Amino acid sequence: MSRPAIDFYLEFASTYSYPAAMRIAALAEGAGVTVRWRPFLLGPIFKAQGWDNSPFNIYPAKGRYMWRDLDRICARLGLRFRRPDPFPQPSLLAARLAHVGLDEGWGERFCRAVYAAEFGEGRSIGDEGVMRDLLQGLGVAAEPALARARSDEIKERLRATTADAERHGVFGAPTFICADGELFWGHDRMAEALAWAVRPPR
Amino acid sequence: MSRPAIDFYLEFASTYSYPAAMRIAALAEGAGVTVRWRPFLLGPIFKAQGWDNSPFNIYPAKGRYMWRDLDRICARLGLRFRRPDPFPQPSLLAARLAHVGLDEGWGERFCRAVYAAEFGEGRSIGDEGVMRDLLQGLGVAAEPALARARSDEIKERLRATTADAERHGVFGAPTFICADGELFWGHDRMAEALAWAVRPPR
Repeated sequence: MSRPAIDFYLEFASTYSYPAAMRIAALAEGAGVTVRWRPFLLGPIFKAQGWDNSPFNIYPAKGRYMWRDLDRICARLGLRFRRPDPFPQPSLLAARLAHVGLDEGWGERFCRAVYAAEFGEGRSIGDEGVMRDLLQGLGVAAEPALARARSDEIKERLRATTADAERHGVFGAPTFICADGELFWGHDRMAEALAWAVRPPR
Repeated sequence: MSRPAIDFYLEFASTYSYPAAMRIAALAEGAGVTVRWRPFLLGPIFKAQGWDNSPFNIYPAKGRYMWRDLDRICARLGLRFRRPDPFPQPSLLAARLAHVGLDEGWGERFCRAVYAAEFGEGRSIGDEGVMRDLLQGLGVAAEPALARARSDEIKERLRATTADAERHGVFGAPTFICADGELFWGHDRMAEALAWAVRPPR
């Protein structure tokens, strides 16, 4: 039997995707699960729900709570935390670059670097200069990566991933989908999703 | 020093309040925390956010996920689960009766009985006959309790609890608020809330 796999749908503007992205590799390794990183965009999915902004901005009490909750989670996990301004950050460029990286072998490291910059240091991930810094920090030549991020091939790959997410019922991030279609939403369901992925077939 | 206490804001129409209500007494006892049960109404709070229905009905993908997630949670915890129809159930009468019971010493048992009937058996908690059954099952005389539930005193107590919830930033249920004002939202934050309640002052 092949090793169990899980789809990890992440959105770079999503706050709870930060601790999930920083932790999933180690947890999945321990559980014996292969993770397929699937960067997508929540914007089109939120738009279909009638939202043109983050629900954490639309509903202020929920937003205030989320920042406090994220702060507590990061403190518990030993992750740096700094709230980016503005929120949400434009995530399109980072998402396209992540798809380049996932094709070229530096994608997961890049995803973690983006989240660490955005929510650990409060940097602006929509800024091409910041992306250049992160790529260089990973030893990746920035110009070819940025050029490929603007290619039709990569734009289409991101669109297709977002369409996959919507088709599978994704409505927020992070979301984890097991091979049998079972869906888990939120950083606080990550361990449960990994356990589901390896449970014996019924 | 007095025993640490926590406010438990519950809404009888709220799905995730079901496992929280069934479990909190035992967990709080183990943690050495006193729980103050505070039945309130989410309706006025949702209305202020522009919702005239449960967000699980307004956003169907989120709703489908919630029912599946609740089913998994109940299976894991050994709780019966049956989805009530319609959802959400009208919770006003149960909330008023709960305030009567909390004043008369049978409130917590009544709250658990309401949730078990609603989400364990799919019964209609807006039905006065169902409320009568539950009260009788607890050995409580139904008529005086129902009469008092309709009194201005009890109506005002429920209104005041809902106003307290809103003032403290409650936007969903269940919500747990520690003596220092720290707020935790959701059944999946219950253990963390209890741990917060007993941590040494900084």
